[in-house]
Amino acid sequence: MDPLNIIGFAAAFLTTISSLPQVIKTIKLKETKDISFWMWTFLALGIFLWLIYGILKKDFPIILANGISLLLILIVLGLKIKFK
Amino acid sequence: MDPLNIIGFAAAFLTTISSLPQVIKTIKLKETKDISFWMWTFLALGIFLWLIYGILKKDFPIILANGISLLLILIVLGLKIKFK
Repeated sequence: MDPLNIIGFAAAFLTTISSLPQVIKTIKLKETKDISFWMWTFLALGIFLWLIYGILKKDFPIILANGISLLLILIVLGLKIKFK
Repeated sequence: MDPLNIIGFAAAFLTTISSLPQVIKTIKLKETKDISFWMWTFLALGIFLWLIYGILKKDFPIILANGISLLLILIVLGLKIKFK
């Protein structure tokens, strides 16, 4: 695998799993006052569109990365609504 | 512009500006207790690698979107460290 692809995979991996620490923190803390509802709403919409983009282009890495991202983002958004 | 590109641009726009509401909220609230430090650290590293990827590929849309994203993310991370 060439260096460019390694950088791309590392970038995709980090951005995809980045919401996981927020999910864990919010489940433990049960508080979401400091978290922006609109940030997570824009992010969910944007990642949903990336997922649609990947499906239309039949691009499996885009589908996989954004599918996992969207799941984590929707969990944070759900927790934000639950613990507001 | 074909529908696929419109979806891609809308997706890139939403994910790029998604951190802005968090920046505004945190500047107003001056509290970051509920925000995950590791989420924003992983996100900053991931987006930094996307920026490098864009620079190496000479892909201007990737450079622009991730450059703006990284700036906003670093502001949130800076506020998280300042108001912890």
